[in-house]
Amino acid sequence: MIARGEPFRWPITVYYEDTDAAGVVYYANYLRYLERARTEWLGALGFSHERLLAEHRAVFVVHRVEIDFRAPARLGDRLSTGVVLAERGRAKLVVDQTIERGTTNIASARVTLAAIDPAAWRPLRIPATLVARLSSPTEIVA
Amino acid sequence: MIARGEPFRWPITVYYEDTDAAGVVYYANYLRYLERARTEWLGALGFSHERLLAEHRAVFVVHRVEIDFRAPARLGDRLSTGVVLAERGRAKLVVDQTIERGTTNIASARVTLAAIDPAAWRPLRIPATLVARLSSPTEIVA
Amino acid sequence: MIARGEPFRWPITVYYEDTDAAGVVYYANYLRYLERARTEWLGALGFSHERLLAEHRAVFVVHRVEIDFRAPARLGDRLSTGVVLAERGRAKLVVDQTIERGTTNIASARVTLAAIDPAAWRPLRIPATLVARLSSPTEIVA
Amino acid sequence: MIARGEPFRWPITVYYEDTDAAGVVYYANYLRYLERARTEWLGALGFSHERLLAEHRAVFVVHRVEIDFRAPARLGDRLSTGVVLAERGRAKLVVDQTIERGTTNIASARVTLAAIDPAAWRPLRIPATLVARLSSPTEIVA
Repeated sequence: MIARGEPFRWPITVYYEDTDAAGVVYYANYLRYLERARTEWLGALGFSHERLLAEHRAVFVVHRVEIDFRAPARLGDRLSTGVVLAERGRAKLVVDQTIERGTTNIASARVTLAAIDPAAWRPLRIPATLVARLSSPTEIVA
Repeated sequence: MIARGEPFRWPITVYYEDTDAAGVVYYANYLRYLERARTEWLGALGFSHERLLAEHRAVFVVHRVEIDFRAPARLGDRLSTGVVLAERGRAKLVVDQTIERGTTNIASARVTLAAIDPAAWRPLRIPATLVARLSSPTEIVA
Repeated sequence: MIARGEPFRWPITVYYEDTDAAGVVYYANYLRYLERARTEWLGALGFSHERLLAEHRAVFVVHRVEIDFRAPARLGDRLSTGVVLAERGRAKLVVDQTIERGTTNIASARVTLAAIDPAAWRPLRIPATLVARLSSPTEIVA
Repeated sequence: MIARGEPFRWPITVYYEDTDAAGVVYYANYLRYLERARTEWLGALGFSHERLLAEHRAVFVVHRVEIDFRAPARLGDRLSTGVVLAERGRAKLVVDQTIERGTTNIASARVTLAAIDPAAWRPLRIPATLVARLSSPTEIVA
């Protein structure tokens, strides 16, 4: 159980696949890390992407990303990715995410997600059962 | 129009996304290059993945890859990927592919593809119209 | 030759590698498209990453990305990526980039790049010869 | 501690980034999974890529991959990747790797690795301290 407002955290290891010829993690790959952490955060809330699709015909898509890259991560680094809910609308969620190596901030991002019906690619209300879980973040068990 | 047996060729440029911290193209990314070339080869034969799916409920999946990595490709390299049909069965194709930088062989691969019905994930006969095109490779217009 | 302020454009084809199980291009992969276009834009200005590193000990790294995803791109789509210089500082460049499929805006991004010395990972003045080229964008030959 | 010949195992979760528009893991991405498992196997033997480079000026590169794709993995799957040493030469290692979902074999691969000096990109004897560890696989602590 984690305290209200405290971010959900997910560990990430940097492998060769993540790095580029500049010797650091390729910038787009940080977005893969962010998405892994959001997937595990949803999972900790009891919602897998598969369940959202099967039971609610819903998929979360990313509408907007603002990300600041503050320090490079390198091969073999053990990172930690944080997720905290910043805002909840009827069809969208805004989450604040960070990537750290120990106490060093590697990147900080604000990500806007929208629930959609993937068949019509139209906005959808976030399923009530997920909203209920999002409203009581203290219940998140990491 | 290309001569019978002469490989279809597709150009590839190496970007940062393709490289890793060892300063060379990451090994799995050569398989992405091979697949781009196969997609364009099918396209040159008149078959897109979208058309195969919409008209024939068929998807090609890779069953086996044998690949030898002979020399490293690096950031900014302009490569050429070759595709030549080696074997054709009722439900499978075997293609020989190479990746070159000028006259240097970067990698050589033999790739076995199978046509499947993606809903059932079961083998499927290769559509007759595609077989017809594969039987007359001289008609390939690159 | 392109008119002043008109964006440099680079074509992108969507392959299987770019898509995900939601049937659309995976969000992080748009950043790969943006980087390919920036690399080719620098190339059109006469500067490869290899030349920047060899002659100027300089690497461009991304400091910040703001990106809005407006419509999904799908397998087989032929996209166009635009790059236009928005701002130039002593050590940084801000570029505005878009991704289109025909007249449909797929994504729009503002990307902040910084020139650094990769050995020290410290900011560096943008090489004067590149600044000279950036000041006369009408000379860009796409 | 694991029994002689018993494979080292590493868990993998399938995220959106790994899948493609056919709804399954993109074939090249299995090679990323294989490499993560090899990295962690080397780590369990006490050797990181960073240590190999810093202390021995050595990098392992992949010379050859033979891989059979037996069943598709899908979004959310929890997989297990195995690594077992099949052969050891002066400058090369051959490892047998599998990917499983429960008792289902997803893929099986034989991977040939060579130790090289990354500056000269020339073969190198595998460091004696690593050979010593490889000779006593029962000492692997997973």
